[in-house]
Amino acid sequence: MSPDIEVLIQKISRLPGLGPRSARRIAIHLIQHNHDILEPMLNSMKKVHDNVKVCPVCGNIDAFEEICSICSDPKRRDDVICVVESVADLWAIERTACFRGKYHVLKGLLSSINERGPEVLLLDKLSTRCQENGVTEVINALSATVEGQTTDYYIRNFFKDRNIKVSALAHGIPMGGELDYLDDGTLFTAFSARK
Amino acid sequence: MSPDIEVLIQKISRLPGLGPRSARRIAIHLIQHNHDILEPMLNSMKKVHDNVKVCPVCGNIDAFEEICSICSDPKRRDDVICVVESVADLWAIERTACFRGKYHVLKGLLSSINERGPEVLLLDKLSTRCQENGVTEVINALSATVEGQTTDYYIRNFFKDRNIKVSALAHGIPMGGELDYLDDGTLFTAFSARK
Repeated sequence: MSPDIEVLIQKISRLPGLGPRSARRIAIHLIQHNHDILEPMLNSMKKVHDNVKVCPVCGNIDAFEEICSICSDPKRRDDVICVVESVADLWAIERTACFRGKYHVLKGLLSSINERGPEVLLLDKLSTRCQENGVTEVINALSATVEGQTTDYYIRNFFKDRNIKVSALAHGIPMGGELDYLDDGTLFTAFSARK
Repeated sequence: MSPDIEVLIQKISRLPGLGPRSARRIAIHLIQHNHDILEPMLNSMKKVHDNVKVCPVCGNIDAFEEICSICSDPKRRDDVICVVESVADLWAIERTACFRGKYHVLKGLLSSINERGPEVLLLDKLSTRCQENGVTEVINALSATVEGQTTDYYIRNFFKDRNIKVSALAHGIPMGGELDYLDDGTLFTAFSARK
């Protein structure tokens, strides 16, 4: 096998969710469709490489000059910031169109196992933004996992004396969910938080 | 979201084994590691795009001038051709280093459901090669599925009157396999083919 192919397979196999076998399959697919798939893919990646950056304010990724399209949108509220773990989560919330404020993307959740301390939360940046824009509410849209809840607690604690309300997404039965199939933890939470 | 990102995600999601969610994850990973992952990936894909082709003789993919490194290797036997479904299968056999002849890569297996007829087997090309190189044996290294076995049967039939031996890989218990965990079909085949 040509070393060029080996290097490409190795690189593909290191992408999230892929391994050596799926990488080989993708590489063969790309090479066998040199003109109709590999070439457009190359052009598309080149465009993204040249134009797309990480927003220095919120951490979203987008094509922009100084700040991303969400941060520069005058129709969005400046006084509410939604904290998300990743850009994928930001996009998920954007798809629902339920939120018209700004975002703060973490560099990960607090995790003792993965040795991620408070520095990944970029709280200095968030706190400065809150002061400058008169933010009244920070919404923690974090996963309902141990790491997500630890991070939520840490952020609440951080803002406790700063006169900023910190809220979190509701926990409960997912829409369309049947009681019989729910795990005990969710059922317990939904029961306790009944309204 | 920038249209450049959307186009890239769409293209990634069409690769084999990937869907919209994994494509989003990969795109975000690439963009967030613009210099250390996206850029090397671009260079590697560019090299493969420029240098790697499908071999006109056997169908292998490789970097070459006229024919691939396997077809042009003088140490490999010319009189045995191994028929494989895909380049991935060819590479799998090469990794075992158990075969020192040449290959013939099909464009797929016969399949009535997927409307693939005998034209995908490129038998004219194979037959011409057999005549020109005095091939004495064609080895069908095909999957033990209905499609693989139908294709095996079709190729055997094709070469019946051409004085060329057609063989196929042995079926039986995989090495390390425990009897108790085998499916009935494999156990039956292994029993019938005892030696």
